[in-house]
Amino acid sequence: MRESCVAVVGATGAVGEEMLRVLERRAFPVRELRLFASSRSVGKRVDFKGEAITLRALESGAFRAVDFALFSAGAERSRAFAPQAVAEGATVIDNSSAFRMDPDVPLVVPEVNAAALEKHAGLIANPNCSTIQMVLALRPVRDLFGIRRVVVATYQSVSGAGRRAMAELEAATRARLEGRAEPREVHPRGIAFEVVPHIDVFVGAGETREELKMRNETRRILADPSIDVVATCVRVPVFRSHSEAVVVETRDRVDLPALQEAMRAQPGLLLRDSDETYPLAREAAGRDEVVVGRLRVDPDDPRTLAMWVVADNLLKGAALNAVQIAEALCAAPTLP
Amino acid sequence: MRESCVAVVGATGAVGEEMLRVLERRAFPVRELRLFASSRSVGKRVDFKGEAITLRALESGAFRAVDFALFSAGAERSRAFAPQAVAEGATVIDNSSAFRMDPDVPLVVPEVNAAALEKHAGLIANPNCSTIQMVLALRPVRDLFGIRRVVVATYQSVSGAGRRAMAELEAATRARLEGRAEPREVHPRGIAFEVVPHIDVFVGAGETREELKMRNETRRILADPSIDVVATCVRVPVFRSHSEAVVVETRDRVDLPALQEAMRAQPGLLLRDSDETYPLAREAAGRDEVVVGRLRVDPDDPRTLAMWVVADNLLKGAALNAVQIAEALCAAPTLP
Repeated sequence: MRESCVAVVGATGAVGEEMLRVLERRAFPVRELRLFASSRSVGKRVDFKGEAITLRALESGAFRAVDFALFSAGAERSRAFAPQAVAEGATVIDNSSAFRMDPDVPLVVPEVNAAALEKHAGLIANPNCSTIQMVLALRPVRDLFGIRRVVVATYQSVSGAGRRAMAELEAATRARLEGRAEPREVHPRGIAFEVVPHIDVFVGAGETREELKMRNETRRILADPSIDVVATCVRVPVFRSHSEAVVVETRDRVDLPALQEAMRAQPGLLLRDSDETYPLAREAAGRDEVVVGRLRVDPDDPRTLAMWVVADNLLKGAALNAVQIAEALCAAPTLP
Repeated sequence: MRESCVAVVGATGAVGEEMLRVLERRAFPVRELRLFASSRSVGKRVDFKGEAITLRALESGAFRAVDFALFSAGAERSRAFAPQAVAEGATVIDNSSAFRMDPDVPLVVPEVNAAALEKHAGLIANPNCSTIQMVLALRPVRDLFGIRRVVVATYQSVSGAGRRAMAELEAATRARLEGRAEPREVHPRGIAFEVVPHIDVFVGAGETREELKMRNETRRILADPSIDVVATCVRVPVFRSHSEAVVVETRDRVDLPALQEAMRAQPGLLLRDSDETYPLAREAAGRDEVVVGRLRVDPDDPRTLAMWVVADNLLKGAALNAVQIAEALCAAPTLP
């Protein structure tokens, strides 16, 4: 791969910081790295490959000569600056929800639908964290048996809500253990020793936007609008990694040994086969793979399977997937 | 109601202690109370209505003249002593799993299937905590639309594993916050800041006994063996109350206003109607009702609904339901 000029927008966030580590760890061929952050961080320095890089503000021309601009600074900032980055010649890989449902913007998990990268107009969307890990586990299911419906209940860590949410879980837990009032800035109804079925905002018909994202993005990535997705998205007092209880109604009967074999062959997926080896959030944290355990067929319906899907939401759910998209674009003959 | 002689077996456990409080709070007509506990507690005293009652050991004749014996000391102890209690003339209400699938033993949630109490041979089973709260929420759904399938993912508090598990969650959380190794006696893979898809033992085909209980007990209580139940049971770092993400496929189309009305009329159920009023574990703790929120219909399938069901697992999930069974038996003309 030829060397690239890479920009990271939101470089000090929980995901932005992981993007730097992933670029470094995977030896992504970076010729120049430009790091952008909010005004309160501008001027500070961040380490990359042993070099101190100064954080900059976004301004006109910021993306000139940039090959890849990785955005992870929220939907508002993406809407404001991603078009500028594209206009200045960069290929934007956007981790926000701003463009995910735009039909001209590919929504990509490279191990699932890399082909969607063949056509783009300078902008590629990184899917929602809870969707990425699920569709990667669903891919072998879809390929072998087809999918009618997915019912998913999530157990999402607070890091999905950013660094402040992680600090609040710690502070709130300490407060509860010491009998003090807990801080409730990020989680208004509390998160210490509590599970909260409310992620992102309510969007009508009793559904949250996180749940809507899981439906819409799953359909787009699996390229099948007929798949019904019923999601309940829940924040749990875990620092890092999302877990998901996924139940799939398939079109054909499930052949469990065939599925296990396909899962073992699926890049990016690790299958924990036996009962007691189910994956846990803490063990998945820092790993690149989506880990599947508790894989079983409904004894009363050979067209229904259940599984427990765990992944590091900051890595495969965000930073790693974004960098993998850049890698896939580099590997393609005509891109970026 | 005439006054009864009541025995509580396992009086010092998390559920046993709640049984005493519930008997007192509901002014259950107790003439005499006999409290049984394991050998290390025998001789200690426990308060009931301001009176100190000495804990006894189980021995021959222990249940003579007892009207109701509430057992909550584990399946092994129930199997060993419940038959003795029945032989000595008591009506046993057993909170363990020992007799729940015995066709001669009614399995009862009074607000759902009190009629099952009409025939019994001295022994009535209290269902599993996670099942009780779910079937109570399912009853209006079944009555109005019929039920084909239930897909449930649970978020079960550590109190379901008893007092030691609650102490371990606290100690393990403190240890993690202080950077020390956490105790892992009750939860071998850790429970502090972790969610664990493993409750009770694995029983084959990738399923846990807790999941099997939810299937079998739901069918028995709703008196419909055709209902398919796919459960994923997960322990979460919450002290008290279980939460459940329940998705139901109905036989007829769901009429949401009719269901809301039926839920509001359902004894033992509280409906939190609007988006943001979803129930939380901590708020349900200490309450008698099962609280339902996030009630919604799948926008793509009018025969599918989702809801969030929360209840105090030690109360409605155990102690309260047991006492309500005794109350129902007292109220019946010929019983006990």
